[in-house]
Amino acid sequence: MNILAISGSLRKDSFNTGLLRAAIEESPDGMDITIADISGIPVYNGDEETRDGVPAKILQLVDDIRAADGVLIATPEYNFSIPGGLKNVIDWISRVENQPFANKPVAIMGAAGGPLGTARVQYELRKVLGSQSANIVHKPEIFVGGASTKFNDGRLTDDICRDLIGKLLAALAAKIS
Amino acid sequence: MNILAISGSLRKDSFNTGLLRAAIEESPDGMDITIADISGIPVYNGDEETRDGVPAKILQLVDDIRAADGVLIATPEYNFSIPGGLKNVIDWISRVENQPFANKPVAIMGAAGGPLGTARVQYELRKVLGSQSANIVHKPEIFVGGASTKFNDGRLTDDICRDLIGKLLAALAAKIS
Amino acid sequence: MNILAISGSLRKDSFNTGLLRAAIEESPDGMDITIADISGIPVYNGDEETRDGVPAKILQLVDDIRAADGVLIATPEYNFSIPGGLKNVIDWISRVENQPFANKPVAIMGAAGGPLGTARVQYELRKVLGSQSANIVHKPEIFVGGASTKFNDGRLTDDICRDLIGKLLAALAAKIS
Amino acid sequence: MNILAISGSLRKDSFNTGLLRAAIEESPDGMDITIADISGIPVYNGDEETRDGVPAKILQLVDDIRAADGVLIATPEYNFSIPGGLKNVIDWISRVENQPFANKPVAIMGAAGGPLGTARVQYELRKVLGSQSANIVHKPEIFVGGASTKFNDGRLTDDICRDLIGKLLAALAAKIS
Repeated sequence: MNILAISGSLRKDSFNTGLLRAAIEESPDGMDITIADISGIPVYNGDEETRDGVPAKILQLVDDIRAADGVLIATPEYNFSIPGGLKNVIDWISRVENQPFANKPVAIMGAAGGPLGTARVQYELRKVLGSQSANIVHKPEIFVGGASTKFNDGRLTDDICRDLIGKLLAALAAKIS
Repeated sequence: MNILAISGSLRKDSFNTGLLRAAIEESPDGMDITIADISGIPVYNGDEETRDGVPAKILQLVDDIRAADGVLIATPEYNFSIPGGLKNVIDWISRVENQPFANKPVAIMGAAGGPLGTARVQYELRKVLGSQSANIVHKPEIFVGGASTKFNDGRLTDDICRDLIGKLLAALAAKIS
Repeated sequence: MNILAISGSLRKDSFNTGLLRAAIEESPDGMDITIADISGIPVYNGDEETRDGVPAKILQLVDDIRAADGVLIATPEYNFSIPGGLKNVIDWISRVENQPFANKPVAIMGAAGGPLGTARVQYELRKVLGSQSANIVHKPEIFVGGASTKFNDGRLTDDICRDLIGKLLAALAAKIS
Repeated sequence: MNILAISGSLRKDSFNTGLLRAAIEESPDGMDITIADISGIPVYNGDEETRDGVPAKILQLVDDIRAADGVLIATPEYNFSIPGGLKNVIDWISRVENQPFANKPVAIMGAAGGPLGTARVQYELRKVLGSQSANIVHKPEIFVGGASTKFNDGRLTDDICRDLIGKLLAALAAKIS
């Protein structure tokens, strides 16, 4: 089972990319998780799309989503909603024929410094991916609040969170098989 | 009265930029509307912010919002929500001290090819700007559906829409004075 | 295939109940649609639940949802969101053990007098039913705007809408089988 | 300054009604807070409205909102959204001419047993009250998570929360005067 993981943050020390690394460690037998690179993608501009087409990096991402059995997204919350950069990637992806998120199993989680742990963004992300008919895992929900206390040197050390991530991956696997 | 206008689309022939041009024509006496340039802004990356600070173009935009009596936003809907590029601009703006949207009167409208005319995105945009304590005009709401039939050579020709834009600007003016 | 249909409006001449009647007429071979009665249900009060348990009418509805292969909801939009009465029914249903909406295929549509045709409420309803792990049909989406012009004597006369309803039922059937 | 307070829960030992009692204790000089009674209100039915009009209890509530300088709402979260009962009250209120929430200062808070403390419902409530042009306090936001540990015999004992409530009331007062 082949999972493509996407972090909503481009920061090197991102808590959310840290969640994805924890997911790799907690993944069930037979599940391989690869973290996608979404840096360096220009802001969507319809005129540039008409002139130059969809960027090669997005086309690669589309291929990777298609080749994957499922997608795992970990995202911070910016201003109560989806980070513009992550939304921009999803907007670009939506421009290709035969949208790769259609019917694709997708699991969502998030970490934030505050107590809510990205509770506000995850539902908007579900709505957005629903527009492309993604097959989204409902439960468990993972809101890692107070993230700065739950990581050590970039590694998620909170056992409750690690256990929940294992359960989320099991639920994702159940949608795939 | 000095209004800064922001289009959620970077396309040259954008319907939403067309709405802003119509707003200039329909603006009440004593209101000046200037359309901001939000092209060429990189996707937010916390590491780059730490290294290089907030981009000069965003700092200019922040100054322009501060100098304006109000803000007018016209936005398309991408995948049921805020275009990634527009959200990215708002995310960058939120990074400065003394957020410029705080208590700033803001009016929102949108145009789309489909029948809903951006009905799904405007509430998310209200939520996002609310996170920065913007003072948002509630009514009238302007959803320009079937936009391709309401513009001619880039000019909004639908009189009902033009009249509504005038009313929206009057409501924005009422929040300012 | 056995579908339980729920109208978000209690009005006898409700457009939304009219959509459900149209669904009965447009249902594919082998699909039976029964319209549930959700009138006369008290507003949820935790103290009354503790004292008297869940109302018999809700328990019947829970049994009917469990016995059904899928659920079809047609709802108006009240104040940009779910009618309180419909939400109250969903709140009561959520109180039983083994929530009946879990993994249940559910299709949603709506009619309204205005141009948006319930575009604002359907996503909130998806979020709410998602909290109970419903398996919601993404597409087609059905927003019947200008409803007063599309019904005659309580019968939906708009062929485009009737055709869309047929497609929605086919998508619901595909989730079931 | 005269504030009408509404609890989204009908339970006698409701945490949210407890928040309102704490607000009475934390209210600034010159602010009087009265808790409204919203029990016993029937589910909205357009046919019954046509036949019998708006219930007397709703008309009283409308008068009380009009007479108040501001409104304070404390609500639980049911199934990720507004409790059906509270939404039903708002739906009824919206039926009178000259909607009483228009331009009325409104502050929102909430308590829940889980960690998120009603983070999911408050934005939907803002959207719904925005449909009636309420003048909603943006900050501070109050999400009382783990509520069972923060009350003793019905009294809010958490000093951080009590302090935040005082700040919310000050922000509400600032919108009034």
